[in-house]
Amino acid sequence: MSVPKLTLTKVVAVALEEDVGRGDVTTEACVDAALTSSARVAARERLVFCGTEIAAEVFAQLDVRVRVEPHVADGAWLEKGAAALTLHGPARSLLHGERVMLNFAQRLSGIATMTRAFVDALPAGTRTRITDTRKTTPGLRALERYAVRCGGGHNHREDLAAAVLIKDNHVAASGGVTPASRRARARAAHTSKVLCEVDSMAQLAEALEAGADIVMLDNFADDQLPAAVKLVAGRALIEVSGRVSLERIPMIARAGIDVISVGALTHSARAVDLGLDWQ
Amino acid sequence: MSVPKLTLTKVVAVALEEDVGRGDVTTEACVDAALTSSARVAARERLVFCGTEIAAEVFAQLDVRVRVEPHVADGAWLEKGAAALTLHGPARSLLHGERVMLNFAQRLSGIATMTRAFVDALPAGTRTRITDTRKTTPGLRALERYAVRCGGGHNHREDLAAAVLIKDNHVAASGGVTPASRRARARAAHTSKVLCEVDSMAQLAEALEAGADIVMLDNFADDQLPAAVKLVAGRALIEVSGRVSLERIPMIARAGIDVISVGALTHSARAVDLGLDWQ
Amino acid sequence: MSVPKLTLTKVVAVALEEDVGRGDVTTEACVDAALTSSARVAARERLVFCGTEIAAEVFAQLDVRVRVEPHVADGAWLEKGAAALTLHGPARSLLHGERVMLNFAQRLSGIATMTRAFVDALPAGTRTRITDTRKTTPGLRALERYAVRCGGGHNHREDLAAAVLIKDNHVAASGGVTPASRRARARAAHTSKVLCEVDSMAQLAEALEAGADIVMLDNFADDQLPAAVKLVAGRALIEVSGRVSLERIPMIARAGIDVISVGALTHSARAVDLGLDWQ
Amino acid sequence: MSVPKLTLTKVVAVALEEDVGRGDVTTEACVDAALTSSARVAARERLVFCGTEIAAEVFAQLDVRVRVEPHVADGAWLEKGAAALTLHGPARSLLHGERVMLNFAQRLSGIATMTRAFVDALPAGTRTRITDTRKTTPGLRALERYAVRCGGGHNHREDLAAAVLIKDNHVAASGGVTPASRRARARAAHTSKVLCEVDSMAQLAEALEAGADIVMLDNFADDQLPAAVKLVAGRALIEVSGRVSLERIPMIARAGIDVISVGALTHSARAVDLGLDWQ
Amino acid sequence: MSVPKLTLTKVVAVALEEDVGRGDVTTEACVDAALTSSARVAARERLVFCGTEIAAEVFAQLDVRVRVEPHVADGAWLEKGAAALTLHGPARSLLHGERVMLNFAQRLSGIATMTRAFVDALPAGTRTRITDTRKTTPGLRALERYAVRCGGGHNHREDLAAAVLIKDNHVAASGGVTPASRRARARAAHTSKVLCEVDSMAQLAEALEAGADIVMLDNFADDQLPAAVKLVAGRALIEVSGRVSLERIPMIARAGIDVISVGALTHSARAVDLGLDWQ
Amino acid sequence: MSVPKLTLTKVVAVALEEDVGRGDVTTEACVDAALTSSARVAARERLVFCGTEIAAEVFAQLDVRVRVEPHVADGAWLEKGAAALTLHGPARSLLHGERVMLNFAQRLSGIATMTRAFVDALPAGTRTRITDTRKTTPGLRALERYAVRCGGGHNHREDLAAAVLIKDNHVAASGGVTPASRRARARAAHTSKVLCEVDSMAQLAEALEAGADIVMLDNFADDQLPAAVKLVAGRALIEVSGRVSLERIPMIARAGIDVISVGALTHSARAVDLGLDWQ
Repeated sequence: MSVPKLTLTKVVAVALEEDVGRGDVTTEACVDAALTSSARVAARERLVFCGTEIAAEVFAQLDVRVRVEPHVADGAWLEKGAAALTLHGPARSLLHGERVMLNFAQRLSGIATMTRAFVDALPAGTRTRITDTRKTTPGLRALERYAVRCGGGHNHREDLAAAVLIKDNHVAASGGVTPASRRARARAAHTSKVLCEVDSMAQLAEALEAGADIVMLDNFADDQLPAAVKLVAGRALIEVSGRVSLERIPMIARAGIDVISVGALTHSARAVDLGLDWQ
Repeated sequence: MSVPKLTLTKVVAVALEEDVGRGDVTTEACVDAALTSSARVAARERLVFCGTEIAAEVFAQLDVRVRVEPHVADGAWLEKGAAALTLHGPARSLLHGERVMLNFAQRLSGIATMTRAFVDALPAGTRTRITDTRKTTPGLRALERYAVRCGGGHNHREDLAAAVLIKDNHVAASGGVTPASRRARARAAHTSKVLCEVDSMAQLAEALEAGADIVMLDNFADDQLPAAVKLVAGRALIEVSGRVSLERIPMIARAGIDVISVGALTHSARAVDLGLDWQ
Repeated sequence: MSVPKLTLTKVVAVALEEDVGRGDVTTEACVDAALTSSARVAARERLVFCGTEIAAEVFAQLDVRVRVEPHVADGAWLEKGAAALTLHGPARSLLHGERVMLNFAQRLSGIATMTRAFVDALPAGTRTRITDTRKTTPGLRALERYAVRCGGGHNHREDLAAAVLIKDNHVAASGGVTPASRRARARAAHTSKVLCEVDSMAQLAEALEAGADIVMLDNFADDQLPAAVKLVAGRALIEVSGRVSLERIPMIARAGIDVISVGALTHSARAVDLGLDWQ
Repeated sequence: MSVPKLTLTKVVAVALEEDVGRGDVTTEACVDAALTSSARVAARERLVFCGTEIAAEVFAQLDVRVRVEPHVADGAWLEKGAAALTLHGPARSLLHGERVMLNFAQRLSGIATMTRAFVDALPAGTRTRITDTRKTTPGLRALERYAVRCGGGHNHREDLAAAVLIKDNHVAASGGVTPASRRARARAAHTSKVLCEVDSMAQLAEALEAGADIVMLDNFADDQLPAAVKLVAGRALIEVSGRVSLERIPMIARAGIDVISVGALTHSARAVDLGLDWQ
Repeated sequence: MSVPKLTLTKVVAVALEEDVGRGDVTTEACVDAALTSSARVAARERLVFCGTEIAAEVFAQLDVRVRVEPHVADGAWLEKGAAALTLHGPARSLLHGERVMLNFAQRLSGIATMTRAFVDALPAGTRTRITDTRKTTPGLRALERYAVRCGGGHNHREDLAAAVLIKDNHVAASGGVTPASRRARARAAHTSKVLCEVDSMAQLAEALEAGADIVMLDNFADDQLPAAVKLVAGRALIEVSGRVSLERIPMIARAGIDVISVGALTHSARAVDLGLDWQ
Repeated sequence: MSVPKLTLTKVVAVALEEDVGRGDVTTEACVDAALTSSARVAARERLVFCGTEIAAEVFAQLDVRVRVEPHVADGAWLEKGAAALTLHGPARSLLHGERVMLNFAQRLSGIATMTRAFVDALPAGTRTRITDTRKTTPGLRALERYAVRCGGGHNHREDLAAAVLIKDNHVAASGGVTPASRRARARAAHTSKVLCEVDSMAQLAEALEAGADIVMLDNFADDQLPAAVKLVAGRALIEVSGRVSLERIPMIARAGIDVISVGALTHSARAVDLGLDWQ
């Protein structure tokens, strides 16, 4: 469930370069090189934590002498005041990395916490999935997808090559859902699924006819969902997308939808409040 | 007021690699290479736009044949329904770059719009500045600082090398505000200002005595501000920081504070709603 | 059907760095900077050409003044002696790039030519696909996949994230095909297909029961195929893999197999003979 | 005799990025993180092995806990069924790196095995060298040169800066072998040798007159070689190039040629058959 | 006082790539892999040493088995014949890294030694600083700034973003020192100082009036300095720049100037003589 | 005679990143974006100019609208006050690139000017070469080698792979000049020359016997040179190295030495004085 190691290495290197690449003049002046210290990363509000692996990578790159001691696994609830992890090592290095580490952890924990709220809104017993979208922060997609998983969500396709997704523009350019589907199947690997976004019952019927593996109901009204589910009749997975609010989750799940994709998980989660308590 | 060109190039390259680095199988299958098209980037809510330069860079890297025609400058208000820019070029390339371009523009316009709200909350006639902090998205600092400027805000120090900022840990490690200041001045370039974070009137007095160029009042209560301003008496710039809400801005500005730094501008602005209208 | 632009740029840059990164002392000494020339990339044997896009990128990076004039599209048959493209420009730049361009074109045309032989071995009217595998040259996967497409083949999954492929080790570690499938479905995106490699009829039955989207018959004997196809009965795509020779292609296709994956296309195609004829 | 460390690091990083950069969804789902395993890299045919250093680098980058235990040195013959090395470590990491490691080892061992066949074709007692050319796989030159050395061969010049090599185009552009030589000597470092490709006895005489350090006989007929050797009379090294088959090696060596360069070693060696046996 | 770790890593990697990226054919041929050795980096003239951190990084990247034993700290005087550090490890690795390590150390020690001469020329009791400028070697700025600090000097602004420095062109383009100052203050962060270069007493008066934090007297004659100091009267720091020779240092310092910036420290220091003594 | 394009691109990118990567706050504040300007790069002392190609690359990367108009070719003498080139374009971009461009040009012109002095010290009619060494600035080797050529000098081997150079340590580790030579020949490409450093007539004799292509007389006294030349008798090129001063050049050349290598050309040339005159 972890972040791919090679990506993590690159993203953290960029972040450190950005903040401490040219040095930390205050710390080097005021803090003796020999001073060691400990500090706790603590929740200042209730939240789902996501940041242990990232913290470990931040300090591994800055100073191998820093030891990162986790108290919870990524994905766990943290009560207000509780500590996610404790850092031990040269005080200079802890200060060099503090902001970068918190910038990652606050943002990713914010995503995990918001995702958890959506997942917890699913009625007991449904098999509906909450997923992210491609509306992620440029450069941080792999990390944000990981945060969504930490919150109990699932991921959507990773990029434009990961599956076929036929949207209105593709339909228009190909002359209809059926020719678009046929062209896509002919070009895509046999290992790729074909998704088709539809905005009406007629389009839905055509997509099913064309053999879509997944149909995406775009901005369907609540009362259209049962008819859509009935029409599909198990021939494809059904996904609902388009500005889905937390309040609508139980209704959509109960209608028998397989997947609800929520762009806000990654584009609009606020950072949660984490701080560093020195000891 | 632009983003440094070299940074822009690198950040956009990473984002494109992430989303279209391995190709866009749907578009290549369904859309003919010879098809050209136009599309408008339009506001789906009222917002301050920030994204013209980024859009230009996204498409310059993807396909030099795409022409980006701006209708407003970055930093302008856009009414709901209005277009920020129009793209002209091969339909395939517009589709390849659509998501990456919108991911940037929605996020940065979100920051610009939130910043504008804080700036507009300043009473007429005050010279108080609203600034960002170092609580930016890892990898996107230069772009987010630009978005803050587009919203009428100002920037704080760019990184740990850009100025001296003495915090409680530095004070503790140096044996007090005065020795911390002296050590920092001795080490820092003469071109660097010295900022000192204080959490009490006593510390404020000591920081002024030590010759701080800027004093940062951390989590001071509203009714402490007048006394603090009086004590400083023009000897240093005064900055207020620490979870400042929009409601408190007029009061703080009227108290005579020079700078209000707001972390939420970059760590918790929600993405605003922008879409691509095909023509 | 092209190579992703960003990948092409990086791969060509590495190749040029390797061969001409430190200069071309002979050409700089012996050839005047002002001399211009033309040269034809010509086939010295019958082959399927793949190299026009790559040649264009090689010379775009070396010297924008070089003009690459294609005579055939990638994927076309070229008779012995025929020219694929003509280069026009400064003689120095043509000489600087000659070897790198030919190294790419000979290798990729070799893959395209071999793929074409496998595709042409399919009986008329079958819908069986010839595909590559992940046994590609390190660093050149995207280009080699493109070459396979130029030869009329299709691609398999791109990398370890592009689809679920359950092999014997995964089965052993999970306690069977069924639990492996369940764990994979739970973790993978709903947009991912699940492939299951099987080496017996019993395993095949279990994979179908577990809902595999694609079953891969690994080293099945020729006379086992009809029974396998009958057992599957359209519930999954059927792929045959494992050292498939050209001779066996018609038989396998006639048995009703959907996909034949051939590692040799990318790991053992010999370079075809292309040369540069100066004019 | 090893691969330069810095190059090895970069090439392996690219290969891992390509195959596992976005994760390995099957293994993460099906294999427990705590499971450890051992696996042998075994020859499925008789071959000269080349891959120990590469395997070590692959797993060092993926997971430092994997231990690579070599059973033979690079360059040794491996009988069918024998193991080249054993891997010990977390099963997940072994699965993540399996394909990349084999892709390198099969290709490089293929080159080493083919080179060994050419070297073993040299008559006992001759001092003739078998060398590679610059017809290497883009991006893998340093590794393929290493594989050639593992097979008992030698390397030719590394790139366009490594020595002067005057070909027909340089001769044409300079007005003859003599002026080309003079221009090259004047420009090249005194530490560079000058090679001159010749296609006739007349050109050979001129090259010797011009002081070439090495003369390259391009596509000379077998019966021309003795006269050429006699003409040179020890004044230069003599190299034979141009589609040299294995069968011609003994004859060429006996004629007294110093160097035979064989492009096929790197552009057309087939991958040999290596597999991973889990234990 | 150290070089930022991330920069050091990158600069050393480039230098090693440049010199040993393609291998060291002589050492690999002549020196057995098992041979270990020790060697002292020794001063062949009296100098201020700067190179311990760099040597450690060079060998850490080349071969972790090499141990770097420092005898003095960076910034210490080294008498002729004395050793700065001793290297222990595989003889091959010591030979691979010898030249790169010395190229760094000779150059940086040259800068440190020259800086020390300027600093030692300051009269006892003055608080004047000797600083570098932005006239550094492209790519090595962070290291050269460190060398200046090792020599007892201070640094000037790091780059074009680190502070505002108004020069004659900015004045001309803005319509005067006062408007240039106002525009700069409005745009720059409140954490940035404003420097103003002046070439006459009139400009100096205007700069002070405009509130410059630092005034830079460009090519002022010696006898103008007292009047300038008197005019400033503590309202700004005073810097003298422009081809300042060692001989003028005491006079300038005694005039009460705060900062003397010396471009020659980084653009024209000669390399000092360091060698490697094998043991 | 130019710098390899790919290297030039990378080196200039690093230099720009270092100085203007984060922006140029002063210029953006004070200079209108629409203002265009012209400026001459002028010599403030007599010098051999080297910087036209570099200036072109600096401004190509910063702003393609800047036009670089050269008045002399690299390598030409420039009298005090004369202009090497004129820049035309947006004033902002000229200011952004001014310092980086001058930092390159002053340093490289310094090398070219010093090299020219050594070359001009050669007596008329001798064929002795002045060359550089590997004692170059880390990261700038290709540019400094170019500057040496612009000054009329020649280059030595480029890096540790470019030729075999047997030094005392290699001799010691191999058991003598003869075995060192034999091992090196066996391992190195047949296209590599073998250089042997000798410090006595006895070693010189042994090196010749072993077939060295070039013998390097290390710190030989002036009166030893004629005997050395006599002993060599045309069997090898003779190089003199080791702290050679300008005064000794005529004598060494007259003794019949082929090559004089001078480390100071690249490690200790002072920057010459170039400035930008705005028009």
